[in-house]
Amino acid sequence: MTWHRKHLLDIESLSAEEITTVLDTAREFKAVGERAIKKVPALRGKTVVNLFVEPSTRTRISFELAAMRLSADVINFATEASSLKKGETLKDTARNLEALNADVIIIRHSATGAPHFLSRFLKGSVVNAGDGAHEHPTQALLDTFTIREHKGRIAGLNVTILGDILYSRVARSNIWALLKLGAKVTLCGPSTLVPRVFEEMGCRVTYNVDEAIADADVINLLRIQHERQRQTMFPSIGEYTALFGLTQARFARTKPDVLIMHPGPINRGVEIASEIADCARSVILEQVTNGLAVRMAVLYLINGGRTGPVTSAPSAS
Amino acid sequence: MTWHRKHLLDIESLSAEEITTVLDTAREFKAVGERAIKKVPALRGKTVVNLFVEPSTRTRISFELAAMRLSADVINFATEASSLKKGETLKDTARNLEALNADVIIIRHSATGAPHFLSRFLKGSVVNAGDGAHEHPTQALLDTFTIREHKGRIAGLNVTILGDILYSRVARSNIWALLKLGAKVTLCGPSTLVPRVFEEMGCRVTYNVDEAIADADVINLLRIQHERQRQTMFPSIGEYTALFGLTQARFARTKPDVLIMHPGPINRGVEIASEIADCARSVILEQVTNGLAVRMAVLYLINGGRTGPVTSAPSAS
Amino acid sequence: MTWHRKHLLDIESLSAEEITTVLDTAREFKAVGERAIKKVPALRGKTVVNLFVEPSTRTRISFELAAMRLSADVINFATEASSLKKGETLKDTARNLEALNADVIIIRHSATGAPHFLSRFLKGSVVNAGDGAHEHPTQALLDTFTIREHKGRIAGLNVTILGDILYSRVARSNIWALLKLGAKVTLCGPSTLVPRVFEEMGCRVTYNVDEAIADADVINLLRIQHERQRQTMFPSIGEYTALFGLTQARFARTKPDVLIMHPGPINRGVEIASEIADCARSVILEQVTNGLAVRMAVLYLINGGRTGPVTSAPSAS
Repeated sequence: MTWHRKHLLDIESLSAEEITTVLDTAREFKAVGERAIKKVPALRGKTVVNLFVEPSTRTRISFELAAMRLSADVINFATEASSLKKGETLKDTARNLEALNADVIIIRHSATGAPHFLSRFLKGSVVNAGDGAHEHPTQALLDTFTIREHKGRIAGLNVTILGDILYSRVARSNIWALLKLGAKVTLCGPSTLVPRVFEEMGCRVTYNVDEAIADADVINLLRIQHERQRQTMFPSIGEYTALFGLTQARFARTKPDVLIMHPGPINRGVEIASEIADCARSVILEQVTNGLAVRMAVLYLINGGRTGPVTSAPSAS
Repeated sequence: MTWHRKHLLDIESLSAEEITTVLDTAREFKAVGERAIKKVPALRGKTVVNLFVEPSTRTRISFELAAMRLSADVINFATEASSLKKGETLKDTARNLEALNADVIIIRHSATGAPHFLSRFLKGSVVNAGDGAHEHPTQALLDTFTIREHKGRIAGLNVTILGDILYSRVARSNIWALLKLGAKVTLCGPSTLVPRVFEEMGCRVTYNVDEAIADADVINLLRIQHERQRQTMFPSIGEYTALFGLTQARFARTKPDVLIMHPGPINRGVEIASEIADCARSVILEQVTNGLAVRMAVLYLINGGRTGPVTSAPSAS
Repeated sequence: MTWHRKHLLDIESLSAEEITTVLDTAREFKAVGERAIKKVPALRGKTVVNLFVEPSTRTRISFELAAMRLSADVINFATEASSLKKGETLKDTARNLEALNADVIIIRHSATGAPHFLSRFLKGSVVNAGDGAHEHPTQALLDTFTIREHKGRIAGLNVTILGDILYSRVARSNIWALLKLGAKVTLCGPSTLVPRVFEEMGCRVTYNVDEAIADADVINLLRIQHERQRQTMFPSIGEYTALFGLTQARFARTKPDVLIMHPGPINRGVEIASEIADCARSVILEQVTNGLAVRMAVLYLINGGRTGPVTSAPSAS
């Protein structure tokens, strides 16, 4: 196992071995979350800043808890009421946070490449918590972790990502992670949202949902992202559900051991039938649990945590 | 002393003995708040989530501090900027928080029964921090605690609750607690806001404020809750004050040792004359202090804290 | 070194010796921020409340981190969603926070004198984090600290404050601190924003920017505070930059070892040319770092911290 990076900016630049190192480390941190005292002293006295320039609650809370369980001090800096409104540049904001001796800046931003930009001048670590429609690396790591826990491997699996691929950073990061680890990736959705260009990455692109899900070991359903679409890409929500939603009828034609995944929050009755979200093959809530473990692993590793067994003694804090 | 519950959902379902157990435990935690190091390690490594779907500052802060002083990790999840706006159901939100290994979810919600609903499917503990016009159990516990500290008992006392009873969860929870502990409860206010149906619970209902306060050992003044009234229930604020406000003239006709209480925030000059709020018989600020102790006791007990002397050694945190 | 105060309300009432005590203590806390474990146990079990009735992100975060690094429990109470909107008075809000056993209330408020007002009735400590256009004492302390670190002294230095003096609490606090420590203070800006009355305090007032900066050892540039001006005090931003901005041409005529300071957030290209903000003589980011150290020192001292070497062992938290 190897990890020498100071930042986690994307999946694209990671090697399969690096991804595997995160997943292996996360497995140990998942056990911490199941203990009575869910805390280790690994980042005691470190300062972690959640710089969320684009609103988010669940990802922010997941990172906040991950940092707390590593005993770090956590500061939340949301765009509301922030200096950004007064016209300060992102660079100046980040350098100000660094001047407060921040060890890690976790950034969510609507602009592609914002985390990479920060990493070029900050001395501390940068973690990408979602940049525009580009990447959301911890989501891909937690998705991959969840698949590996259930299937025992990633290589050779058929993974179908269904929905708005074009505007989805979740899709992009998942595609990179899955391909690097040897999965076969199928993309499906409205043709306006699933351009053929993804075939060049090595994915299968199809607009036939039955074909997309027939041989899938994993179906990852994406949320319809109205907010990131610049124009209407399909006629109506109802039509989307009719054509691409995971209905009971379609679900009946999937493999008996298919895993149903969704990055949340789910739109019941839109991209997924409510009963399927709650059925035994759905691992949607496990993804949330695993997200915390993966984020603890990432914060631990970029702060120089040694690979191998993590510090497991309960913290004095 | 006994406590076997995992949740605190309401006062209605508690026994007198259970209420007394909380009050006795709170007495010990009150002492913690008076020490130089206001902290015990009881909930170290536990995760407490404040899920406030209805805005509140003071109750949220009281719970947040209570959890901090028990050394728990606390996450604030307010409805602003949350996934609820994107259409996620309350159930899904709560199950997502649970998936983060939350040990306790403290919920404030505008819908009656929201905490009970969560308790039916969550594995962790649920605390009701106010649900619609239904109950606000920790408020009743802190009010009862405050009365008992001053009067030495609850049984046999005349307690008058004055104001908007109909829309008040504070009133409902107080009525349950006081009746269970043997007090005589009088309700008074505009007839539109104090329906006769409360007599069936065992309360005296009167629209004559002089009668209501003449023999009272305790007067609990409720805030006029414009925000929870669906229509105008009385002609004007001025008329409310004239008819039901605790003015100096009315106060002069109360018992010399009457306790004046108010859940806050007070409207000086509306439901209470400013001088009365600040006088020696007012225990309004003591209620705030006691609220913290009561909430520490509740969090401690639902997490399996043993009754009897609480862990009193200062925490390592 | 001496410190006997419970509050930090302003610079005006401090002696030169008291200011020096804060600066000396801050020097020790600055070293804490450079350690791997940036934490000392000095305020363990204490409760610090950030009562920000006027929005601020950077000052709030600086105080929050300062309190965390002293191991205190920190509560953020912003005006949004707070009881203040429901009509509660500031006095009642503050007394409610005190009733939660708050040891320190850090207040930012748009009204001059709000912190002094609180200090007259609260038993705990009060720290002024900016009151209207009156004072912002920790800003002056961090500015003075920064100057002393670079110049080795304050006495005898020529310090020019340039910009909107009239509405600037930063200017007022800096003027007091600098004069008390023996600096010569020059004020410059549009005549509408730099009234002659400041000459009575002992400052030089000039409307000639070239004269103001020619002999300056330190130039402190203030942010143009549109939000605190009751009417337009100068024709346009462009005209302000042309007449009073620190342009490259003007910068070329300053002393070779001049320090360039700014309380932030900076308006690049308005009050300061972008290149100057980033040049070697700019200490703008150091000010941020020093602000944290100064705030740790203030919280430490008002809580009775002994002067001399601070508790330097890493905290158990």
